[in-house]
Amino acid sequence: MKPLSKTQQAKRFSLPLPPELAQRLSRVKLLLMDVDGVLTDGSILFSDSNGESKPFSTRDGYLLAEIGHFGLVTGVISGRRSPATEARCKSLKIAEIHLGHLNKLPVAQEVITRRGLLPDEVAFIGDDVIDLPVMDFVGFCAAPSDSHSAVLHSVDLVLSASGGRGAVREFLDCWLLATGQWEALIERIFQNGHE
Amino acid sequence: MKPLSKTQQAKRFSLPLPPELAQRLSRVKLLLMDVDGVLTDGSILFSDSNGESKPFSTRDGYLLAEIGHFGLVTGVISGRRSPATEARCKSLKIAEIHLGHLNKLPVAQEVITRRGLLPDEVAFIGDDVIDLPVMDFVGFCAAPSDSHSAVLHSVDLVLSASGGRGAVREFLDCWLLATGQWEALIERIFQNGHE
Amino acid sequence: MKPLSKTQQAKRFSLPLPPELAQRLSRVKLLLMDVDGVLTDGSILFSDSNGESKPFSTRDGYLLAEIGHFGLVTGVISGRRSPATEARCKSLKIAEIHLGHLNKLPVAQEVITRRGLLPDEVAFIGDDVIDLPVMDFVGFCAAPSDSHSAVLHSVDLVLSASGGRGAVREFLDCWLLATGQWEALIERIFQNGHE
Amino acid sequence: MKPLSKTQQAKRFSLPLPPELAQRLSRVKLLLMDVDGVLTDGSILFSDSNGESKPFSTRDGYLLAEIGHFGLVTGVISGRRSPATEARCKSLKIAEIHLGHLNKLPVAQEVITRRGLLPDEVAFIGDDVIDLPVMDFVGFCAAPSDSHSAVLHSVDLVLSASGGRGAVREFLDCWLLATGQWEALIERIFQNGHE
Repeated sequence: MKPLSKTQQAKRFSLPLPPELAQRLSRVKLLLMDVDGVLTDGSILFSDSNGESKPFSTRDGYLLAEIGHFGLVTGVISGRRSPATEARCKSLKIAEIHLGHLNKLPVAQEVITRRGLLPDEVAFIGDDVIDLPVMDFVGFCAAPSDSHSAVLHSVDLVLSASGGRGAVREFLDCWLLATGQWEALIERIFQNGHE
Repeated sequence: MKPLSKTQQAKRFSLPLPPELAQRLSRVKLLLMDVDGVLTDGSILFSDSNGESKPFSTRDGYLLAEIGHFGLVTGVISGRRSPATEARCKSLKIAEIHLGHLNKLPVAQEVITRRGLLPDEVAFIGDDVIDLPVMDFVGFCAAPSDSHSAVLHSVDLVLSASGGRGAVREFLDCWLLATGQWEALIERIFQNGHE
Repeated sequence: MKPLSKTQQAKRFSLPLPPELAQRLSRVKLLLMDVDGVLTDGSILFSDSNGESKPFSTRDGYLLAEIGHFGLVTGVISGRRSPATEARCKSLKIAEIHLGHLNKLPVAQEVITRRGLLPDEVAFIGDDVIDLPVMDFVGFCAAPSDSHSAVLHSVDLVLSASGGRGAVREFLDCWLLATGQWEALIERIFQNGHE
Repeated sequence: MKPLSKTQQAKRFSLPLPPELAQRLSRVKLLLMDVDGVLTDGSILFSDSNGESKPFSTRDGYLLAEIGHFGLVTGVISGRRSPATEARCKSLKIAEIHLGHLNKLPVAQEVITRRGLLPDEVAFIGDDVIDLPVMDFVGFCAAPSDSHSAVLHSVDLVLSASGGRGAVREFLDCWLLATGQWEALIERIFQNGHE
C-alpha cells in the first residue's frame, strides 16, 4: 500500500473542538477582531522619530487573505488609530476596518445591521475588558491564550496560541473545520488555486 | 435563571492580594515607575541610523490612560533620556515625566513634596538595583516578574507579569481592586463612558 | 594527560539523528526554504510609514554564508515580495532567491530541473500548509518546532529550534554531521579560513 | 529590631558561584564579548529600506556603563560591521570596539598584548563556534544560556540568562561578587555616586 502523501495527511488535520462549540461556530458568517493583543502581541514599538510599529503574524495573514473564498467576512474594531494597522488590514483584504473607536459596541452593531446579519452569525476575538460589551452582543467569543484574566474566564473559546502568534489563524482553522471546509483549503493549495 | 453576561462575570474578577498588602495599596495616590524593564521588556532597538525604539504594551497603556478618572496620579523617573519614552508617556496622559535622572531619589522626593503627599501614599515599580533608594523611601514597592534578583527579594509585591508584558497593568488592576473600584471600571466600559 | 581544548571538544559535537534520516540527508545538494516562519519567527513589523521589517537570526546567517564551501546550494521560495528579505538573502549569498510566489511547486521544480538535480537531492524547510506541495515533491522535509500542526505531523524532521531562532542553523548542523563535514567546519574556523 | 532597608538587603545578594570559578574570575581585568547572541538575542531586524536594527538590554547596559569604576575594562569583537552596534557600544563607554572581524583570535591577541595583560586576566563571552579559538586562548569563558550546544559544552560558566536578556549583566554581577565589590556598587547607588 502506497503511503499517504503529506498533502493527503494534512487533509486529516483536526482540532479538539467540542460538538456544541463547532455547531455554533458553523453559523458564523462575520468575524470581528480587536487588533492590539489579538492580531499583534500587544506590543507597540515607539521610535525616537515618533513613529509606531507593530508585529503582525504571517501565519494569521496567510489564511485571513484567503478566507473570503470560503465565505467568511472579516473586520477589525480597534481603540487606536494607526496607519500601520490600516496598511496591514488592507493588504489582508479585511472588509471592515474601524480604527479609533474606544466604544466598540455601536460600531459592531452598525456593521452587523448593515450586512443584514443576526448576532448569532457573528464572532468576536478580543483580549481585554474593553471588548466585553461586544462579546456580550455577538454569538461567539474567542480570546488569545495571553488575554486579560477577566476575559479568559468569559469567552466561549480560549485559543491555545497567543496574540500575534497564530491566535487568529487557530480561530480560522477551527472555523474551516466546523464548516467542513478544511479539506477544501488543502485542495485549493494542491490545485495551485492561488491567484 | 438567566446566566450572567460576560460583563457581569468580569465584575467578579479578583486577584489573590493578601489583606495587609491590599490595605497599604489602598492608601496609594501616586504611582511612580521606572521605564526600561517596567513599561518595556528592557530591550532597546538600535538602528543603523542611530535612532532608538522601545516596545510598550497596549494592555498597560489602556488602563494608564484611564486611571486618572479613578484618582491615581502617575509618573515616570528614568535614567535615560528618550524621545520615544516621552512620546509614549504623553500619549498616556502620565502627569510626571522625568527622564535622564540616574539619581532618582531627589526627583521622587521633589514630586512627592510638591504634591503634598506622604511617602505612604506613593508606590514605585522598578526592576533594577538603581531603583532601591526610591523603593526605600516610598510606602509600597512592586517589581515585574523578570526583575533583577536583588530587587525581587526586596519588594512588597512581585507581579506575575514581566516588564512590558502587562506588569504595570497588573499593578493597576490590584490598585483598583484594593480601592474597591474594579466594578466601576467595568461599569464605565459598559456605559460607554470613554471620551 | 592534557585536557582537550574547547575547539577539540567542539569537534565531538553531535545531534541525535536516526541513521536512516542521516543517510537521506547526506544525499541533499540543494536546500530550499520558506522565509516567514522559517528564517524569521513569522512576525512582520509594520510601521506607520508603511515600511516592513523582519527579524532574522545571526546564528542561521553565520552558517548559511559559509555552507557553500561545503557543497550545499541554498535557495528561498516565499509567497511574499519583500525588499528586506531580498537584502538579507543576498548578504547571505543565497543562490536562488524567489519571492512573491504563492504557488511554490513550479518554482521549486524549475530550479531543480535547471540545476540537473533529482528530487532526492533536495531538502525543503517550511512551516505552513502552503508548503505541502513542495514537501511532497522533494526528498527531505524539515519544519521549525513552532510550525503549523498539519505540517509538524507530515515532515521527516521536526527541528527543536523555532523559526528565526536557529531552526535553519540546526538543519545545517545536521547536514554537516550527516555528510561527515562537521569537523571540517571547526577546522576551518581554527585555521582562520574565513575570507 | 529595625528591619533591614531594601538597600541593605540588596547588599546581601549573592550568586551560586563555585569557589574555584570565583577565584579565576577574580583575576579578570578585561572582558571581551561577541555582540550578536550575547549583547543581543541574535536577531537582526531587516527593514525594507535596507537598514538594520538590533535589540540591546538596558539591564546589561546599566552595569556595562558603570563597570569601569570598579576596574574592569570592556571590549567587543564581532564578525559583523554594524553602525547600530557601534552606536550602542560607544554609549556604554566600551573601550575596545572591533567590528567586522570573522577571524577574532588575532584581534583579541593584539588587544591583550597592547594592554600588557596575561590570557588569565581576560574573559570572553560568546555564543557560537566561531568564538572557540578566542575561548581556547583566554583564561575564562562564559556563554549565554541559549548558545550553540557545541559552545555550551565547552565554557567555564553557562549563564542562566540568555543573550540580550541579561546574560552580560549576570557575568558582571558574578565578577563584582568574585572581586568583593558588589556591596560597593550598592553603596555607590545609595550615595548618589552617579555622574
